[in-house]
This record gives sequence, structure tokens and C-alpha cells, in this order.
Amino acid sequence: MKTRFTEAFGVELPLMQGGMQWVGRAELVAAVANAGALGCITALTQPTPEDLSKEIARCRELTDRPFGVNLTFLPAIDPPPYMEYAQAIVDAGVKVVETAGNNPARFLELFKPAGVKTIHKATTVRHALKAQALGVDAVSIDGFDCAGHPGEDDVPGLVLIPAAADALETILIASGGIADGRGLVAALALGADAANMGTRFMCTAESPVHEAIKRHLVDADERGTVHILRSFRNTSRVARNAVSERVVAIEAEGGAFEDVRELVAGARGRRVYEDGDPDAGIWTAGLSQALIHDVPTCAELVERIVTEADALIGERLGPIAAG
Amino acid sequence: MKTRFTEAFGVELPLMQGGMQWVGRAELVAAVANAGALGCITALTQPTPEDLSKEIARCRELTDRPFGVNLTFLPAIDPPPYMEYAQAIVDAGVKVVETAGNNPARFLELFKPAGVKTIHKATTVRHALKAQALGVDAVSIDGFDCAGHPGEDDVPGLVLIPAAADALETILIASGGIADGRGLVAALALGADAANMGTRFMCTAESPVHEAIKRHLVDADERGTVHILRSFRNTSRVARNAVSERVVAIEAEGGAFEDVRELVAGARGRRVYEDGDPDAGIWTAGLSQALIHDVPTCAELVERIVTEADALIGERLGPIAAG
Repeated sequence: MKTRFTEAFGVELPLMQGGMQWVGRAELVAAVANAGALGCITALTQPTPEDLSKEIARCRELTDRPFGVNLTFLPAIDPPPYMEYAQAIVDAGVKVVETAGNNPARFLELFKPAGVKTIHKATTVRHALKAQALGVDAVSIDGFDCAGHPGEDDVPGLVLIPAAADALETILIASGGIADGRGLVAALALGADAANMGTRFMCTAESPVHEAIKRHLVDADERGTVHILRSFRNTSRVARNAVSERVVAIEAEGGAFEDVRELVAGARGRRVYEDGDPDAGIWTAGLSQALIHDVPTCAELVERIVTEADALIGERLGPIAAG
Repeated sequence: MKTRFTEAFGVELPLMQGGMQWVGRAELVAAVANAGALGCITALTQPTPEDLSKEIARCRELTDRPFGVNLTFLPAIDPPPYMEYAQAIVDAGVKVVETAGNNPARFLELFKPAGVKTIHKATTVRHALKAQALGVDAVSIDGFDCAGHPGEDDVPGLVLIPAAADALETILIASGGIADGRGLVAALALGADAANMGTRFMCTAESPVHEAIKRHLVDADERGTVHILRSFRNTSRVARNAVSERVVAIEAEGGAFEDVRELVAGARGRRVYEDGDPDAGIWTAGLSQALIHDVPTCAELVERIVTEADALIGERLGPIAAG
């Protein structure tokens, strides 16, 4: 399957596995790359820039195909050394970076001269236009449906993807709510050049999360996520459990961020993924879990998505159009 | 374009214009029917069952094609005579009814023996399954994206359509967030047999709403709607204006329904449509307004949608699949 995305990023398929904190490690990314899609190591899952360099090297041992690195730079009082992570990416010779979380301008000054292509994640058309003006190589538009941070405008992909396609000239990747060949074809029809899948790749054999979490995703449906931190304009879609519902309740009572800080601490999410107790803390999951019914290898999953997409286009849509 | 929908409902195209209060009148419905899609008169826009009979007769003078009637039965302390409206539909010989708002069982007892086919609107997979079990002929699944009542689960079409398609055997219509050929193809790819468009048909030459409201829809973008009445579990997506923002503010302060009753009174919405002042009251609009850029005739609109869908399938998706 060829699109502007496959040509620009040197992969076989218009399919991407973007950044996922605690999940985007070498084994998963290499498996995605070997299946013909674009996988991304998540930079901040590694405790230091040196560890990121090692993780990139480890991924290279597992695949000869291209892969990327996600670098999410959120505003913070005591931020990680973002620019050192960025330098580690350049020094390692990685040629694709997925940026997210804030204006990517200062990182583009590093990446562009080094020949690193940039995919910037945006949750609104106006932020996507801003990124395009800054010279990113692609925009990944993340709708209301997505896991993690959807922004505050609550526009789902069904509307946000075509609205972004109308506004942008750059390569467009659809993110959020997509987990199978149907979603890939829908994204391409709506104007995207590729689809990004997070939760779906989290639920594969090579994903590093605990088996119990994968089983939880298989069993969960479209009602099993919840938005937290809306009252602080830092909305995040996470798995619905006692902890996330407690956060929502505190917010409904007008609680301050101090009141939920302990509950939303990232270390608890990491423990969920490692220990396998889906109720132990806040962890990220997308609505697309409703469409996830098994734990295939990445090779099986990608093959199935492509087969389904080809059949949909050739055997379902083709005859409908022919009338 | 042939699907199970076109075969079951005797129309040329897998495209529907469902019920819209104050909008679904004879001129619009006949224009939709003449364009090859399934239009629906909105029963409760007519003050009495007798007026509905006259509106159906008026529509028949404008088209020889099949059309339907929407009957929305919401729980109410002093409800309209729903069963008399239903009887008027049967007596007029209309063969398709779109039901919405509550369990359709008691109406099916009237419609089924009379040979009236039923399309039931549902906002959740479990309600869709319930309707299927009751024997409706089709389910129209209405996601988070939609104008008016999206339910309380907040699942957008990108996930809700395939989730419903997986669960249901009956004919499936995708509703909410669709306004062009891209959305139609996406809906078909996601597993629907047809797409329903509301806001898009509201913004056509034959729509009875004031020209100023149509211009407002053309100018509005994906940030121009808001959910009201969420705190009363009676969520509705309406145009963002001073009145709807006031309702949201009252709800955020913990206001009672009594505090917003006057603001949300239906007569104010009717006045918006008739007088053309988009700030005069609460009125329904969908996120798909972001994708609406003109006021075509229904014939022009439907022709464009079909041409765009055919081109998407044959000229964009086909080559990608052949890749």
C-alpha cells in the first residue's frame, strides 16, 4: 500500500505505532518495523538520554528496517533534559521523530539540519497549521477518540481528520480510535495518508505490558475508558477503574490538582503495566479497545489489517461504487 | 450505489436525511427523495396528527419517490399523542418510519402488521441490540459527533460504528459527523450500510431554516458546538452561542433544571430557524458543520457526494490497495 506517508518515511505500509509511555520499547518497535509499519521508541520511557541511545542500538539489533523515536515535551516545572534526548536521537542516526506536547520549533532547529524528519502530533486544526508553518514533515492529528491527551476541543476523528485534510497540505496521519483494517480504510477515505494505532499495538505479543493488562484490553469495551484532569485543562483518556473514577469524583467536587496529584502519579501507571493489576493506578487506554479481541504478534496483526483493508476496498467498496 | 440499505428501503443511494425538529418538512424531504436518498418528515414538527397527515400529502405532491417519517418519543410528563401520530403515519401509507428517543416496542406492534419498516436510532451498542431483538428493520447508530442527543457514553462514530457492526446483524446506518463523500465512504468502510446526514441537509437550498442560519453553518467550524444538559443526563449538542454557554455555566455551578428550563425551551429554537438570529436561543447543530462550506440544492449535494465517494473508492483507495 503506497501513500505519501510510505514514500516519505520509507516504510511499506501507511501504518504507524506512535509513542506510548512505558510501552514503546525496542522489542515492540522492531516487531512493528519488521511487519512493514513505522514503529516509534518512546524517548522518555528511558530514564536518561544515554539509556535512549542504548535502546535505539538494541532496536537496531532486532531490525534492519527504519523506525522512529517519540519525543514528548510537556511544559513542566522541572522538565527532563529534552534537548539532550533530542541530541541522542540525532547522534544515533535515527531519521524520524514523532514530536508531541508543545511547540516543536526549537527541536526542529536541531532535527532539520540533521536530516531527521518530523511528525508532529496535534489535537486541533490550528495547532496542526502552526506545525505545518514551522516546517514539520507530517502532522499526526489526534482526535477525541484517542488514548492519553486529546486536547480540550473534543472533536472526534470522523470530523477532525477531514477538517485537518481540508486545511493542511502536509502529510496527514490519523490517530485515535483506529484498530483494524476498517479504521485504516476510513482514515484514508477521510483524507489521511496513514493511520496511527496505539492501544492496538499495546495489545500484541511483543508489547512489554503485562499479560493481564492485554487480557483486560481484550475484555474491555467502548465504555471502559474515562477522561480525567478535564477540570485542569489537561484532559487525558485513561482506563476506567477505581482510581480514575476517584479522580473524576474529586474533580466534580471542585478539587485542586494537589488533591489528585498522588493518584495520577506516573509511577503508578508503570506499575500497572509491569505488575499486571489494572486497578493499581491510572493507565492510558484508547476507545479503540472496543475493537480489540486478541493478542496477535505484530506480524499477524499487520498482515490482518492489510488483508482486511484490501478486501474492504476491492470486495466491499468497489462493488458499492460500481452500483 | 447498492447496499442492504438501498434494497430494503427502495432508494437509489445509501444516504439518509433523518429527523430534525422544525427542519424535516415536505419541501426538504421531497428534494432529498428526488435526489435518490431517503428523506424523513419530522412528525412532531407538525402540531397535530392531522397536520402530519397533511404534510405527508403535501410531500407526495412534490415527489413520487419513497420517503419516511421520523417519530421521536421522549419520556415526558405531558407527552404529545405519540400513538395518534403513529396511526397517522400508517393511515397515510408511509412505509418507513425512523423511531427515536425510547424503546420502540409499542410502536412496532402497530407498524409491523401494517408493513411499515422501522429504522430505530440508538446511541449505544446495547440499545441497538435491544432494538434488533425487538425486530426493527435497521438501526441508525448515533455517535458522540452527532447533533442533538448523543446519549451519555461519549463514543464517537469512528469506534461506535464498527463496534455496532460487530455486534449487530441488522442493517446499520451511521449517523453523526458525516457531511460529504469522504464520510459516506468511511461509514461504509467501518461497517455501515448507509450514512445519515442531518446538519448537512439542514444547510441546503430546500431546507426551511432561515438563510442567516445556513450562512452561520457555512461559517462555523468544529469548535462551534457545545454539549448542554449533561448534568441532567439529557445531553444535547447544540450551536455554541451566548444562550448555550449560559446553560453550560449554570450547570457548572450546580444549577437545577428549573434554572435552565426557560433557556432551553423549544420555542426559542424554532424562532432561531424562522427569524434567522443564531443567538436568539438554543438550536441543534452537529460537529459536521466544520465540513459544510456552501448551500447547494439537495440534488447538487447528493450528486456531489456520490461523485466524491465513487472517485475516492476508484481513484484513491483502489490504487492504494493495489499499491
